[in-house]
Amino acid sequence: MRGREIHLAAHPVGRPTSSEFRLVEVRVPSPAAGELLVRNTWMSIDPSTRIRMSGVASDYLPPFELGAPLAGWAVGEVVESRAPGFAVGDPVLHPLGWREFAVLRVNGPGRTAPEPIDVNAATPARAYLGPLSWVGLTSYVGLLRVAELRDGDVVFISGAAGAVGILAVQIAKLRGHFVIGSAGSKAKLDFLRDRLGCDRTLCYRDGDVRALLRDAAPDGIDVYFDNVGGDHLEAALERMRPRGRIALCGAISDYNRDGPAQGPTNLFNAVAKGITLRGFLARMYAGEMDAFRSELRGLLAAGKIVYPEVVFEGLDRAPEALIAQLSGENIGKVLVRLG
Amino acid sequence: MRGREIHLAAHPVGRPTSSEFRLVEVRVPSPAAGELLVRNTWMSIDPSTRIRMSGVASDYLPPFELGAPLAGWAVGEVVESRAPGFAVGDPVLHPLGWREFAVLRVNGPGRTAPEPIDVNAATPARAYLGPLSWVGLTSYVGLLRVAELRDGDVVFISGAAGAVGILAVQIAKLRGHFVIGSAGSKAKLDFLRDRLGCDRTLCYRDGDVRALLRDAAPDGIDVYFDNVGGDHLEAALERMRPRGRIALCGAISDYNRDGPAQGPTNLFNAVAKGITLRGFLARMYAGEMDAFRSELRGLLAAGKIVYPEVVFEGLDRAPEALIAQLSGENIGKVLVRLG
Repeated sequence: MRGREIHLAAHPVGRPTSSEFRLVEVRVPSPAAGELLVRNTWMSIDPSTRIRMSGVASDYLPPFELGAPLAGWAVGEVVESRAPGFAVGDPVLHPLGWREFAVLRVNGPGRTAPEPIDVNAATPARAYLGPLSWVGLTSYVGLLRVAELRDGDVVFISGAAGAVGILAVQIAKLRGHFVIGSAGSKAKLDFLRDRLGCDRTLCYRDGDVRALLRDAAPDGIDVYFDNVGGDHLEAALERMRPRGRIALCGAISDYNRDGPAQGPTNLFNAVAKGITLRGFLARMYAGEMDAFRSELRGLLAAGKIVYPEVVFEGLDRAPEALIAQLSGENIGKVLVRLG
Repeated sequence: MRGREIHLAAHPVGRPTSSEFRLVEVRVPSPAAGELLVRNTWMSIDPSTRIRMSGVASDYLPPFELGAPLAGWAVGEVVESRAPGFAVGDPVLHPLGWREFAVLRVNGPGRTAPEPIDVNAATPARAYLGPLSWVGLTSYVGLLRVAELRDGDVVFISGAAGAVGILAVQIAKLRGHFVIGSAGSKAKLDFLRDRLGCDRTLCYRDGDVRALLRDAAPDGIDVYFDNVGGDHLEAALERMRPRGRIALCGAISDYNRDGPAQGPTNLFNAVAKGITLRGFLARMYAGEMDAFRSELRGLLAAGKIVYPEVVFEGLDRAPEALIAQLSGENIGKVLVRLG
């Protein structure tokens, strides 16, 4: 059997272009003992893919190698099982996207093992790439554990119309908080206000983020959920109330940058106001996944969560999907439908 | 009665020089009802004075005004009391140094009120400007509360031979930690190693701090007590182990800088390793002062604390004392003896 994959053809400099990807048809190996063959049905497009394309080792995620397939979260159906506990047709979540077929070792290390998922009308398989994914867990633990959200906190969320932000806004609103969201277009601000109920919105393309946040939060903020870094982080440090908390979640504004990122020039605010900045990756809070999914499934079934999707059809469009996501034009989760 | 004070003559640009200070003789007013007249005996020299000389409002401490006296912690003896609870001769701690006589309102707001102090052989009055001061509390809560020191943590302390660092090193060593200290001269490194028992030392003038810290802490660090900011903070972010904690305590390396400070270029380490950075001022932990002083008095009486002092004689030498402190040449607490 043959299937297609996307390989890394070259390390991008700055924003990726289609020439750094190569669509390759390969022979799909048969699964060995303890392995599954899975036909991927949906794959997730994530900004962290850009970091892994750089060819630079980091503590974050291992880099992709030239001439080898990219990877990322995917869901699919078992087409051949040589492992106990998995039958043909079972839906699974796994980290080998960017290909039509994946061979997965059931007892693989870390998060490389396929995970059986509970699929029904309210939670189709692709929901495990969206609201029920590690990205969803990022929103949840970022607010509740990392930023230690407390009753009455005023919350500022950057990248609020992105995959992490959308759910973070809604979790904060469902708990009754005053929420300020930033995004990069009028369409996104409309979405944040009209669909998610953001109390204030700001478009960072409209001017200086510090001045915009001063207007949006005249009395200051208590929590900042940082999805972008850069000038947003500086604005938040300026507006923070005493003992405020900042959850540092990725820094998408720096993913396309080569060389060192510029740090916040006003970090002294953290001293003067007793601010806590705490970085995190969702996997550091893996133990909370079950509680998170349980709460989210209930909210999804009750129709209380808005989660728009941007769907690209076919593996050959995956590079385009990633480039589009990094351009920041989309609202919601970017997915590629494979089968 | 007449007494001398030091006034702010001009806002310094960069490092202060003697021309920004003016020694002025003034008439000392009589205390009103509810006030004390205190003859100052010792005053503390603190780097934060430089910030307050800039004439720029901050959330940190109010700026000094041109033509008005500077201020800072001092101890003295009551020479006239018009307030209950204070008698002539009582030793007090208060914030109106940089002058020979101070008039103090006993029910003043915040930390402006004079505080009676417990003086004996092991803890002379000036100890309340040193190990028993707010600076001492800074060392104590910075390690134990802000950085949440845990058994077995490897601890890195910058500015380790400074007023905050000296006590922080000793508190960590008394609790059995492996301690790495940085300072700016061979004399300071010798002091840290031979007198305070630092396990490793590094001199930031010897080269790139990142490389020096890599050598000093090949297996990484768990806690960084940041007294200097800048390249030390970047080095610590690089060497931090997962879930490490950074206490941000001032940023003396930026006190002489005008304009925005450069932030750490590798803050993304905080995300990748789940690092917490928490800023603080000792006054945010005022409730811990009694417990801290009780523990420290015991250690001082038992001779377990080394606390060298650099003493300048006479108010007229106070500007020189501050300039010397900001130059970073001294080991230990800088004091001016007034009477």
